[in-house]
Order: sequence, then structure tokens, then C-alpha cells
Amino acid sequence: MDVDSDSRYEKGLRKLEEIHTGIGKDVMTRLRSACQDFEELTTEFAYGDIYSRPGLDVRTRQLCTIAALTALGNGAPQLKAHINGALNLGIDRQEIMEVIIQMALYGGFQCAQNAVFLTAEVFEERGV
Amino acid sequence: MDVDSDSRYEKGLRKLEEIHTGIGKDVMTRLRSACQDFEELTTEFAYGDIYSRPGLDVRTRQLCTIAALTALGNGAPQLKAHINGALNLGIDRQEIMEVIIQMALYGGFQCAQNAVFLTAEVFEERGV
Amino acid sequence: MDVDSDSRYEKGLRKLEEIHTGIGKDVMTRLRSACQDFEELTTEFAYGDIYSRPGLDVRTRQLCTIAALTALGNGAPQLKAHINGALNLGIDRQEIMEVIIQMALYGGFQCAQNAVFLTAEVFEERGV
Amino acid sequence: MDVDSDSRYEKGLRKLEEIHTGIGKDVMTRLRSACQDFEELTTEFAYGDIYSRPGLDVRTRQLCTIAALTALGNGAPQLKAHINGALNLGIDRQEIMEVIIQMALYGGFQCAQNAVFLTAEVFEERGV
Amino acid sequence: MDVDSDSRYEKGLRKLEEIHTGIGKDVMTRLRSACQDFEELTTEFAYGDIYSRPGLDVRTRQLCTIAALTALGNGAPQLKAHINGALNLGIDRQEIMEVIIQMALYGGFQCAQNAVFLTAEVFEERGV
Amino acid sequence: MDVDSDSRYEKGLRKLEEIHTGIGKDVMTRLRSACQDFEELTTEFAYGDIYSRPGLDVRTRQLCTIAALTALGNGAPQLKAHINGALNLGIDRQEIMEVIIQMALYGGFQCAQNAVFLTAEVFEERGV
Repeated sequence: MDVDSDSRYEKGLRKLEEIHTGIGKDVMTRLRSACQDFEELTTEFAYGDIYSRPGLDVRTRQLCTIAALTALGNGAPQLKAHINGALNLGIDRQEIMEVIIQMALYGGFQCAQNAVFLTAEVFEERGV
Repeated sequence: MDVDSDSRYEKGLRKLEEIHTGIGKDVMTRLRSACQDFEELTTEFAYGDIYSRPGLDVRTRQLCTIAALTALGNGAPQLKAHINGALNLGIDRQEIMEVIIQMALYGGFQCAQNAVFLTAEVFEERGV
Repeated sequence: MDVDSDSRYEKGLRKLEEIHTGIGKDVMTRLRSACQDFEELTTEFAYGDIYSRPGLDVRTRQLCTIAALTALGNGAPQLKAHINGALNLGIDRQEIMEVIIQMALYGGFQCAQNAVFLTAEVFEERGV
Repeated sequence: MDVDSDSRYEKGLRKLEEIHTGIGKDVMTRLRSACQDFEELTTEFAYGDIYSRPGLDVRTRQLCTIAALTALGNGAPQLKAHINGALNLGIDRQEIMEVIIQMALYGGFQCAQNAVFLTAEVFEERGV
Repeated sequence: MDVDSDSRYEKGLRKLEEIHTGIGKDVMTRLRSACQDFEELTTEFAYGDIYSRPGLDVRTRQLCTIAALTALGNGAPQLKAHINGALNLGIDRQEIMEVIIQMALYGGFQCAQNAVFLTAEVFEERGV
Repeated sequence: MDVDSDSRYEKGLRKLEEIHTGIGKDVMTRLRSACQDFEELTTEFAYGDIYSRPGLDVRTRQLCTIAALTALGNGAPQLKAHINGALNLGIDRQEIMEVIIQMALYGGFQCAQNAVFLTAEVFEERGV
């Protein structure tokens, strides 16, 4: 890992630290253990390059990610981690639910339902 | 149409009026002409029931819709209408681009690319 | 909840009652407990507005839903509930299997396979 | 092509003949010209093996295909051909619209909207 | 089952035998028990007709299947079976990981992550 | 752009140069004109970081991308560019068709059909 990509990685770690605790960190730890290269590429690119970009606040970024993962319906562990991350950022639980409810319009009611169930799990695990 | 569903429809029309002009209105007009019932169900439910809910501001709702339609990659005319709607709401063109760029992470680079092209079309049509 | 939306909700509940028992009701009960608003929106719109429309018999509606959920492959609990609902409506287990097999053509063999496994689970749970 | 696969092909052609005219036949002709092997595999398997199976009537099969292609939203030319095929089989235009409207629940409103537009095109081309 | 379709089935079984052991065979055994017709259609068409075609080596076919199932993200049991099948064919574990990592570009990071986790499970179960 | 990210970008450009001509280059030029940042992120990450990784030859990478884009069915311009790229790398047109035909099993026949049509267009444009 050369100097600069190390700094992209460190920048990514700081962004990850800002958003994720518990569930989200576990996903990244399991990912590093399963494939270290992919954990590094994810940290560098997703968190170091994309989430760290200016021009959009981190809370809106987080809600847009929840929107997309809800509508796509193919990443339950990642959606759970990002719901948890949204709560870490101080996003209101009602705002999260509103985004998910709205996704019934684009990803279908089945996807919104499954995301509601995941959200309820996260709320319960955090004792919200 | 009974009294209440008329008011859901009117509520939906007001919300549509708030968000959409040009492109978005054309989609709804074409929809009404192709299938009046579905236009009414869409206006009542999507705009009267969902987009009119409190608990999340209309700008964040709009960006979440752009996120989902970008990531799903199966609704180009609707995505174009909602990008136009975002500009109507005063959302900055950079914010729209940031949401779309972020979607490369969840819907793939091909979906983000296609959404970037659509956005450039909307910007050009509006002379932004 | 105003008068009319109450009647859309009641109409939805009657349609839900007609289709779902056991598995399907459990999904709606869990949904209400996780997010009451979304349970109400689902009951009102999906069951009160859409499934209650004339112009297509409830059995064909049920098989079309099984087709879509099989092909999309992102709503296993909902697919299971609708397979159970189809049996409640007196749809033959062979008809259900035929719809699922046909979906290999549009959603891929992996989606049809997963739906066959879910169907076998429902049949076993009902002692069919 | 050996004797039996020829008969699967002929069985497929007869089923294709039963369902498709105009739009649907054009897709298969263009497909044969672009890749003869794939046209033969499609005719043999999709039409000879699957659509020719007993246990589900051809009209319900056709509506289930329209449901799936609407909800997936990634096969516009094929959806258009199958809407046309449904009309050939004597399926009522309202039944087709009902299936498509219902798909807003599973594939999202954008997919149902796009299918409504395609259906209107088919109706217009046939002068329905 | 007539003579020729029996030979397509036998051809399919030989191809299955070449690729799958353990996990993959279990999926087919469970499938036969849940719906014998669909197991036969799968063996005949997927393995007898498609995977047995000349013009592309079996290793590249296997990696392309892993690419597609990773990117679609809706067939975890089938993806696991095909990762196992790839190892049976002597494909290097690094090549499998490279295909999956590349799929972050098209199916999203969530799909690539989930496939990395499944791959790690297969490696562990085989003691790789 | 700092020193290292410039070298990731240059590495990406060299890889792009190796794979793409005509169609593929046009997509990147249009992308740069629509959103320079996203063109840079794509070149750096997709081509500089991912396609340039060792451990899998560029031809297999190209066929896996064709597999994924065919099966997802939501990136026609990108699929067309990658089919063209495959021919640039000396991949046989039959190998490309085999990958696409195989994708009928995972993405559905509609997606494989649409990819066959795109491939025929590319072949014709190149006079293959």
C-alpha cells in the first residue's frame, strides 16, 4: 500500500468511525477477515473517496443509502448497518421510517416491509 | 370517486404541483391518457398519502427518490422527472450529482453513469 | 384516521381476511407492531384499493403476485404468505408450481428454485 | 438437430403461433437472425417445454408473464410482445391493465407506469 | 420421459457430476424432492443444453455464473453451490475472489460483500 | 488531483486504452463532459484499481462483466461498450454469444435476448 492509498484508507477509516459502530464495524471486520483486499478497497473507495466528498451532508448521504438498499432489497446486513449508522449520526428514527415507507413506491411493498422489520430489530437491539 | 378519495387526490395534486413542472407533469398527463385509474391511484397514494406525510422534508424525500431510481435503473422517465423536480425545489445541482455518484456503490457504475447522462440532459433542457 | 380512510382500511382488512390466514396474517401483525402507519398504508392501498378492484378475479391476482415475487426474488416472507394465500383461495398446488416453474424464464432458475423450496415448506406446514 | 429436439422445436413453434403475431413474431425473427442457436433454445425450452406444459391454462400463463416482465422492468420489447400475445388470446384489455396496476405493489410505480405506456402503444397499434 | 429427453437429462447429469459435489448436489436433490419436474427441466436445459455447449470452456462458464449470481444478489444457495463447483473444477480461490470483487462495480458493494462472505464459508467448509 | 491519485488515474487510462475503442471511449468522453468528477472516479477505481488487479486475466474479466451486465439488464450502453471491448481483446464472437446465452439461466430470457440484439449491433457496426 503506497503513501497516498494509505491516506485514502485512513480517510475512509475516519469516515467509517464517524458513521458506524457495532453492527457496521462488525461487517467490516468480518469482511477484512474474509478478504483483506476487498475490505481495503471498500474503505478507500466507498468511505475515503465517496462518503468523504463535500457537496452533500453526511446525514442526507446516509438516508440516500438507506433508500437505495431498501429499494434494491439485496443487502440486508448492509442495510441494517446503515440504519444503525443513521441513528449514530443523530438521525431521528421517524425520518428513517419515512424513507423506508417511501421506498414502497419504487422497490415494492415487500422491500419496504423487510426494511421495516430490520429497522425494528435495530431499534430493539439499541433499546430505542 | 367519493368525497374523501377526492380530497386525497386533491392533496396529491397539490404535492405534485409543488414538485413537478414540465417533464414530471407530462408523465402524469400521458399516464392519465393511457390509464386514468392508474393516474388517480398514483396521485392519491404516491403524492397524496406518501409524499405529503410529515416527518421528513420534501427535499430529502426528493433526493431519496433520486437515489432509489438511480440504483434500480429501471425507470428513466421517472428519474428524469424527479431530477427536474429536485431543481424545482431549489436543490442544488451538485447535491443531485453527489447522490447519483454515491449510487455507484449500490446500484453499480452503469446505473450511476446512466443517471449522470439523464441529469446532464435535464440541466441542458433547463439551461442550467 | 378520517371516515373514508377508515373504510378503505376496513375494505382492505376484509380482502386480507379473504386471502390470508396464518403466515400472511402474522406478517401483517408483525408489520403493525414494527410500524403501525405502514401496516395501515399497506392494508388500505394494497388490499383496500388494489386487490379489491373489479376487472380481474382474486385467483388470477394471487397467481400474478406469486409470479412477480418469484421473479424479483427479494421478498421471501411475502412470497411464502402469498403461496399460503393461494391455497386458501382454493388454487391448486400444481397451478402454483406451474407459475413458479414458468418464472425460471424471466427471473432466472435461481429465483424459481428458491420459490420451489418455499412452496415445499408451505405445503409441508399445511400438511398438503 | 436430432429427431426429438426437432419435435420440441415444432411444439414450441405451434405454441408461439398460438400466442404471438406481429410484434412477438418479429422479436423471434430478429432473434433468429442475430443468433440462430438462441432462437432455437428459446423456442424449444420456453415455448416447447414450459408454455406447453399442462396444469395451467395459457391465458393465466400469459398474465403471469406480463406480471413478471412489468415488475422486473428490464424487458420492454418482450413485455410489448406478450401484451400483444394476451390480446391475441382474447384476454380483455382491462384484465391486462389490472395486472399491470397491481405490479405497482411489487415492482414499483415506475415499472407499472412504463408498462401502462407500452400497453397504450400496443392498443393504439392494434386500433383497440 | 421419451428417449431423447432422457439423453438430454443424462447429458445434464454428467455435466452436473463434472461440476458439482456436496453443496451443489444437495441443492439438486432437495429440488427433486420438492418438485421433480423442475429438477428434470433444470438438469436437461441448464446442464444438458447450456453448460454442455461447445464454444466456451467450463471454467469460464463457471466464473461467468459466479459473476452473474454475485451481481444479481438473489440466489445465495445457488451462488454457494457454484463457488464450490468452481473449486471442484480446479479454479483458483483467488480467481473466484477477483470475479466477486469486480462485481462491486456492477451489482454494488453490498452484493460483492455478501458473495465474499459466502465464499469464505465455502473455503472454510472445504478446509481450503 | 494529488500525485498518487493521478497515477491511479493514469493506470486507469492505460487499462481503458487496452480494452476500449470507439463505443467505450465515447461513453467515457460523454461521462467526462457530463460530470468530470465521476469520470475520474470511474477511471481511477474501476479501471485503475479493479481491472488492473493481478490474479485474473483481462479476457476473463471482460467476459464476467458481459455476464453481469447481461443478467442485470440495466446498462445497455455499458454492455455494448464491453462487448466491443471484448472483441478488441481478441475474444471470439462465439465466446461472447455463449456467455450471453448462458445468462438466460440467471437473468432471464428477456435479458439474454436484449444482449443478443446489442451484440448483433456491435458485430454489424464493426463489420464482423
